[in-house]
Amino acid sequence: MKKVRARDLGIPFEGSPGKFNAITDVHGVTVGYSTIIEGTDARTGVTVIHPRGADDFTPAFAGVHTFNGNGEMTGAAWVEEGGMLEGPIGITNTHSIGIVHHSIIKWQVEHHKMLQHWSCPLVAETADAWLNNMNGFFVQEHHAMHALTSAKSGAIEEGNVGGGTGMLCYEFKGGTGTASRKLPEKLGGWTVGVLAQTNFGRRYQLTIAGVPVGQYLKSDAPVTSGENPFRQEAGSLVVIVATDAPLMPHQLKRVAKRVTLGMGRTGTTGGNGSGDLFLAFTTANVEAARGGVIAQMQALPNDQLDPIFGATVYATEEAIINSLVAAEDMTGHEISAKALPHEEVKELLRKYGRL
Amino acid sequence: MKKVRARDLGIPFEGSPGKFNAITDVHGVTVGYSTIIEGTDARTGVTVIHPRGADDFTPAFAGVHTFNGNGEMTGAAWVEEGGMLEGPIGITNTHSIGIVHHSIIKWQVEHHKMLQHWSCPLVAETADAWLNNMNGFFVQEHHAMHALTSAKSGAIEEGNVGGGTGMLCYEFKGGTGTASRKLPEKLGGWTVGVLAQTNFGRRYQLTIAGVPVGQYLKSDAPVTSGENPFRQEAGSLVVIVATDAPLMPHQLKRVAKRVTLGMGRTGTTGGNGSGDLFLAFTTANVEAARGGVIAQMQALPNDQLDPIFGATVYATEEAIINSLVAAEDMTGHEISAKALPHEEVKELLRKYGRL
Amino acid sequence: MKKVRARDLGIPFEGSPGKFNAITDVHGVTVGYSTIIEGTDARTGVTVIHPRGADDFTPAFAGVHTFNGNGEMTGAAWVEEGGMLEGPIGITNTHSIGIVHHSIIKWQVEHHKMLQHWSCPLVAETADAWLNNMNGFFVQEHHAMHALTSAKSGAIEEGNVGGGTGMLCYEFKGGTGTASRKLPEKLGGWTVGVLAQTNFGRRYQLTIAGVPVGQYLKSDAPVTSGENPFRQEAGSLVVIVATDAPLMPHQLKRVAKRVTLGMGRTGTTGGNGSGDLFLAFTTANVEAARGGVIAQMQALPNDQLDPIFGATVYATEEAIINSLVAAEDMTGHEISAKALPHEEVKELLRKYGRL
Amino acid sequence: MKKVRARDLGIPFEGSPGKFNAITDVHGVTVGYSTIIEGTDARTGVTVIHPRGADDFTPAFAGVHTFNGNGEMTGAAWVEEGGMLEGPIGITNTHSIGIVHHSIIKWQVEHHKMLQHWSCPLVAETADAWLNNMNGFFVQEHHAMHALTSAKSGAIEEGNVGGGTGMLCYEFKGGTGTASRKLPEKLGGWTVGVLAQTNFGRRYQLTIAGVPVGQYLKSDAPVTSGENPFRQEAGSLVVIVATDAPLMPHQLKRVAKRVTLGMGRTGTTGGNGSGDLFLAFTTANVEAARGGVIAQMQALPNDQLDPIFGATVYATEEAIINSLVAAEDMTGHEISAKALPHEEVKELLRKYGRL
Repeated sequence: MKKVRARDLGIPFEGSPGKFNAITDVHGVTVGYSTIIEGTDARTGVTVIHPRGADDFTPAFAGVHTFNGNGEMTGAAWVEEGGMLEGPIGITNTHSIGIVHHSIIKWQVEHHKMLQHWSCPLVAETADAWLNNMNGFFVQEHHAMHALTSAKSGAIEEGNVGGGTGMLCYEFKGGTGTASRKLPEKLGGWTVGVLAQTNFGRRYQLTIAGVPVGQYLKSDAPVTSGENPFRQEAGSLVVIVATDAPLMPHQLKRVAKRVTLGMGRTGTTGGNGSGDLFLAFTTANVEAARGGVIAQMQALPNDQLDPIFGATVYATEEAIINSLVAAEDMTGHEISAKALPHEEVKELLRKYGRL
Repeated sequence: MKKVRARDLGIPFEGSPGKFNAITDVHGVTVGYSTIIEGTDARTGVTVIHPRGADDFTPAFAGVHTFNGNGEMTGAAWVEEGGMLEGPIGITNTHSIGIVHHSIIKWQVEHHKMLQHWSCPLVAETADAWLNNMNGFFVQEHHAMHALTSAKSGAIEEGNVGGGTGMLCYEFKGGTGTASRKLPEKLGGWTVGVLAQTNFGRRYQLTIAGVPVGQYLKSDAPVTSGENPFRQEAGSLVVIVATDAPLMPHQLKRVAKRVTLGMGRTGTTGGNGSGDLFLAFTTANVEAARGGVIAQMQALPNDQLDPIFGATVYATEEAIINSLVAAEDMTGHEISAKALPHEEVKELLRKYGRL
Repeated sequence: MKKVRARDLGIPFEGSPGKFNAITDVHGVTVGYSTIIEGTDARTGVTVIHPRGADDFTPAFAGVHTFNGNGEMTGAAWVEEGGMLEGPIGITNTHSIGIVHHSIIKWQVEHHKMLQHWSCPLVAETADAWLNNMNGFFVQEHHAMHALTSAKSGAIEEGNVGGGTGMLCYEFKGGTGTASRKLPEKLGGWTVGVLAQTNFGRRYQLTIAGVPVGQYLKSDAPVTSGENPFRQEAGSLVVIVATDAPLMPHQLKRVAKRVTLGMGRTGTTGGNGSGDLFLAFTTANVEAARGGVIAQMQALPNDQLDPIFGATVYATEEAIINSLVAAEDMTGHEISAKALPHEEVKELLRKYGRL
Repeated sequence: MKKVRARDLGIPFEGSPGKFNAITDVHGVTVGYSTIIEGTDARTGVTVIHPRGADDFTPAFAGVHTFNGNGEMTGAAWVEEGGMLEGPIGITNTHSIGIVHHSIIKWQVEHHKMLQHWSCPLVAETADAWLNNMNGFFVQEHHAMHALTSAKSGAIEEGNVGGGTGMLCYEFKGGTGTASRKLPEKLGGWTVGVLAQTNFGRRYQLTIAGVPVGQYLKSDAPVTSGENPFRQEAGSLVVIVATDAPLMPHQLKRVAKRVTLGMGRTGTTGGNGSGDLFLAFTTANVEAARGGVIAQMQALPNDQLDPIFGATVYATEEAIINSLVAAEDMTGHEISAKALPHEEVKELLRKYGRL
């Protein structure tokens, strides 16, 4: 059965989505998952994004922004320096960074997808330390390989899947969410797609469509937060933004920065414990990205970026809410986590005139 | 007559303000204005913030964050490098950066407030190019001197005053706003104060207390924006955060980053044309800030920062809304700008259950 | 009489210079000076660089690097964010940043060279606080205008000219220096030009062609440094790099970073008191830099950057040494400074087999 | 037999080393190696640095600088954000980042050395792709564990050991090098220790004590470079700086930046292909670093940093040269590499008056 998404509940968002309302609306992008739910303790997995699909390992121009560096995104140094994303993106739990890093290189070596003598893959994480036993190291090489080889375009799953399997968001069950925006032709016609692995926020902060629903949805919080509006936030948010707009690396860095505002629209105040690292890449300018020779490329002027910035903010907000809407109740390592109660949310939005 | 503030209209905000709900709630901080409204073209001014009052020029630990560098904040290089704010802060219009920079040095020289053989003052700006003729260079040395010498603690003015005199915000009359938060003792008891010079945002984006009021308040926009949700945003936002919490420079940089989320709560998607530069400083650890000798200082652990982050986000949001609520209709150089219509805003908030 | 340059003394450098061995070897770049030497206290000035000459105000792609932010480079925020240098570059003394900033905007307004409603000029500084009385504010609007309007291509002056008039370098008389490299065609044939305003370093550190000459040239140091190898360094270094290679902003930032190594070749260990701020721009890709529409541009792959990096390092080294070789004895505000003794340097280089 | 070090050859350096002229001169720091030389293809290993020894996992204040981000340093995001190094440092080859990352977490879990629910270890790399078959993934968990548990203080090995086993430097055999400086009491008496894993530079660039020895030592270069002074540089440089000076994170970042100048003294121009990532940490202020409560800490004023900056530059230079002097001929995966020829170097230094 197809999972319900935020728009299915009538939650309003700004802007018009692409066909699948997913990061895969950006032509060429594919997404693969490996979901591990075993025994009482294993609630984790791996998400892989191929910027140009698994068969085309041409690099992609990219930029990163760290809103809060309490986390890990390997490979970010070269994106920042060289403006290049050279290979697939992996997202997993904090303690499986190593095995996924290793596995991506091994896959590149075995499939002759190395660009140079060396590879520094991009692997990001959030911590599923409560539903999953991160110290069990459940992610193995074959899981990463499965995510790498099973990636596909079109509609993709959300909620308790891939790297997001065991995550918490605003003290509800979080996970994986996606969304996209297709700009009108007169604004460039570009597509912006977002994939978020959500594991951040305190219950009282949760805001949906501007309504502070978290202040009313107090029951079933898995972690005792009391009424204190200033408690320590744990967890993290990883967001990957894809576009087909012909942006240069410094412009993609600016796009990645705007993720912050999309995240903010869901209510967080940016806790110390949350590693919020964002990446944006473009599939455009493939010849220039390939390197080797002086190539022609298209350059979008800075003063045409606002629609792309807006699309990024709005798609990020929707991807986060989608991760909450799609996620389902889960019992795991140390706790049980409840899914966002759809009916109560609808009721609150109705009460506040937003439905 | 005392101006109305956002809370007077019943607009809800998170957290508890300090005594004056102003940046001056941080002990020692003083604020001075020079407001220039002359003829048909001069609608501008200067705002000065003395971190420790005009008579104490001990440096202050500080950090900066540039959300969008389409603007100017002189002196930021040393704050970033040395972690120090060495002197008063000036805020003015874009084309008066030079004269205010010059004037602050002159004031430091004349009053023997130079710390070294040289001074690199911190001067920030937003562009009042529509209500004010920036090319008229109306700000003169005596205006800057007035702001420097008239600074005071306690309640301070908002709206069409100081550097914010001729600014626009969300296509309403913007200007200067302030707010503060006083944390409960069990969360440290620290005070966080914010001063914002607001000159950013498109009408359709304006969000107050989570309600997208800008989508309804379409009349009287001074700049034609049509219905297009992705138009170019012009203008800028400068925010200064003061605190008495004993933070190190890298932690103050983190505080400055959180201003982004407060700005986001008012609806912007971070336009290319908006120079959004933020500074945070602390009045704490005065001995260590004075330098010269190895000093003892207090260090707040990172995991006690969340209340300060939250206070920064919420006080920023309120300072921006305060700037809109306090501003009054103005006719100037090229346009007329309307103030935020208090009654219509209240009606909209009532309709959406937020009043 | 034509001043002697470092190569005239036989000092060896790596790489081949362009026609004038100056930043003006990059086609279109012009340089103007205003030199102020009056009475006993005024020893200062203004240097202006027009990236495309005074008549063409098309922006230029650019990048900045701050090795040590104890200084000022206004306008750097937009270079970092937008990748664009929009107007002429000014370099002066620390306390004349304001007047030069003001003057550049005024010149842009009067000559209709504004790109937008606002301008945030790039003005950098070093402190001539010992030979010049910076608190005398000797630089006036007409000085800046003179530098702006008298800029020229071809051979340019070095030593006690322009913004560098009153500077000290390694406790000798410093000032303004320039150099360039022309790459062989098989390495791209690009030109890299450097202009340095030198005001940094302790005598004992000075290294020329790898020879620690500063350890022998101890006489006539204007500031008592004793024998202590670890004394506080004051002063600063501003370096502007121009090229015609088709680099993107993030690549120009990488070029600016390499200035650090060129600086290092002259012996400094990077003192706290030295504001070392570097900018690199390219005159290439003029259509894309102009903005407004989606433009075609050329992209140089990262793996073809090494010759440009090397040229930057070597031209920076030579520009710094050129500033020392060209500078002449000066008596001013508080001290007298000796020029680098050419004969003694030659003798030392001969002794160490480098001449 | 004790290996020869650079000073044993008479090569002159600035400043006075500590007892062992090693990073271990900073009290508490221990270093462990795992060296893998097997068959024809395995020439690699792991280096571990415990900031406070293996038994004390109190975090350390730290800062990072990326001179050229063509490499990997996991864990750097939190050092940059939180100013904290939380656990041991691992250094290995590029394709073993994953396994070392995994192993450090496992070691932390097994020995109850986790500070939080999660760990983001700091692991850096250089590429031994020519002497070692990086795609053979020879580094295994037990190798990392050995380096973690065998770490010791006092004199440590250099050359073909640990992570540096299969590295090349200036086209000679490179590897691991270390050095330290002990400041005079009147300059603070602090110790600065450096450990470098060297894998960078082109033969013609190599400079020792200011003498361009690489221009004469052309024989036996393992990689054909021809005479071309601007060829692509491959390889990387990782440098770890330890000190006991009471520096704040933003000051340690400044220390890390100065490594650039030490690297530059050996002749490189900073090639695109070289990942040059530097970390500096302090063992001081242990109470504040431990966190949890508001702690007292010592603050060193910025204007007392110059001796520490100088010590960093000079110790970095010496550590790099030490790595070259200690390394021995090696035949491996694809090439044979020659060690730096001690006698020829001495002869060249003698010729240029530096011995």
